[in-house]
Amino acid sequence: MIVANTIAQARQQIADVRRHGKTIGLVPTMGALHEGHRALIRRCRDECDFVVVSIYVNPAQFGPKEDLAAYPRDFDADCRACREDQVDLVFAPNDEEMYGQSHLAWIDVDRLGDHLCGRSRPGFFRGVCTAVAKLFNIIAPDLAYFGEKDAQQLAIVRRMVHDLNFNLEIRPCPTVRTAEGLALSSRNDYLDDKQRPQALCLFEALRHGAAMVSRGVLDAQAIIGEMKALIDKQPAARIDYISIVDEEFLQPVTQITAPCLIALAVQIGAPRLIDNIRVAPPE
Amino acid sequence: MIVANTIAQARQQIADVRRHGKTIGLVPTMGALHEGHRALIRRCRDECDFVVVSIYVNPAQFGPKEDLAAYPRDFDADCRACREDQVDLVFAPNDEEMYGQSHLAWIDVDRLGDHLCGRSRPGFFRGVCTAVAKLFNIIAPDLAYFGEKDAQQLAIVRRMVHDLNFNLEIRPCPTVRTAEGLALSSRNDYLDDKQRPQALCLFEALRHGAAMVSRGVLDAQAIIGEMKALIDKQPAARIDYISIVDEEFLQPVTQITAPCLIALAVQIGAPRLIDNIRVAPPE
Repeated sequence: MIVANTIAQARQQIADVRRHGKTIGLVPTMGALHEGHRALIRRCRDECDFVVVSIYVNPAQFGPKEDLAAYPRDFDADCRACREDQVDLVFAPNDEEMYGQSHLAWIDVDRLGDHLCGRSRPGFFRGVCTAVAKLFNIIAPDLAYFGEKDAQQLAIVRRMVHDLNFNLEIRPCPTVRTAEGLALSSRNDYLDDKQRPQALCLFEALRHGAAMVSRGVLDAQAIIGEMKALIDKQPAARIDYISIVDEEFLQPVTQITAPCLIALAVQIGAPRLIDNIRVAPPE
Repeated sequence: MIVANTIAQARQQIADVRRHGKTIGLVPTMGALHEGHRALIRRCRDECDFVVVSIYVNPAQFGPKEDLAAYPRDFDADCRACREDQVDLVFAPNDEEMYGQSHLAWIDVDRLGDHLCGRSRPGFFRGVCTAVAKLFNIIAPDLAYFGEKDAQQLAIVRRMVHDLNFNLEIRPCPTVRTAEGLALSSRNDYLDDKQRPQALCLFEALRHGAAMVSRGVLDAQAIIGEMKALIDKQPAARIDYISIVDEEFLQPVTQITAPCLIALAVQIGAPRLIDNIRVAPPE
């Protein structure tokens, strides 16, 4: 496994691989790799000749009051995980390498990014898109792997790839959960022993919502109301949003007449957690 | 010479060329090819194995009150010129192919785009950057050729390439002029017989400004004042801006202490023309 800290090093590796006609897969991460990331990496390993994992805590996607400094970092553990999963190249640039002295070019995806997580995290998706586009241009992967847990990010990155004609395919991968159902996230590390069981309310509410849809309840407000009541039982929980949206443009629906996402963001104490589930009206 | 009207056709050609390890050069144009474009094409022909000319009147860079519908188009003449100049591939997509039903992803370059031409053409550089990025992702050129006449576009595209890590090099090419000094532009076609001689005032004023700098006049306001007086002599001329700016960030300077651009935009009747000249303080 090679570790490249500069764009030039990464490009040289990639050029060699390309010359041999191999397919390149990219798993973009902010490190603190957990089994969710590793599911992406293993799928990439299965499907591509050459597996690249980028590890970069992207400052452009953190707001001024967010947890950039506190965000979990353990590069040695990440490298061990990548070695175990037979990663070929870890690309781990620093901020100087990624954004230099002045960075002026930014990518926005209209309409998909101004609500849900975008409302409480202005500039977040601009930061995500810009960093992801940079990684796409540096690594030039054939395939890139993103988790479905970050549903809005996935929809926005897909739209960016489509609209800007990046010559690659996005492979979405299912959310990995603990046995109890908590979606894996680096931010779960922030939960203390009292908060952790309460964090299960996210998936519990999503399952409840999905069960209502299977029973034929298709009115979004009715479903959201019951989900809200479930979450409000947890003393540490503060709901940021619960929303039922179409899959392409992530616009809120009032009636579930086609496959939709139920998406939510809930603070459990300080940490803000997100999760989602796909639902479809019964046939 | 191959003409590709779809992204898929263009990509297939490019993939073939890539497999043979050839270098690819791109000259992005809006058609109505004149000797300025052809200088770009010939330089590309000299420097690259495979020459791509894109011909696409990009609606995203026209304002609602601008000349999108009237913009000169002559695809047959353009193809003849490309054949003469030994172009390998003409990429001429339509709007459906480039922007589809809904296009949501846009690229902005902060700071460089909100003044000079950006002030009277809001959204112009966002449209330019987005279309150019799409072309870069579709054609994946090693080299791309841009004219120095569009100095702000050149600086912004260079910045976008740098900041978003496009894996290519921008080659700027000198402005081509008529014997009298008028910078070639597709919009010169709009000038009537009375306006055409008056349009020479742009380059006359630039030369006057440059001559002042060579004589050691380094105060921007003094230079701009004399240039303004020269242009105001022409009855059809209406100055949009005359500005002296640094070459990297295009910020106005008050004293010329390093190489700068004198840039201007002047309406001659209806058509709005731009031009610029590079100046440096005497040694």
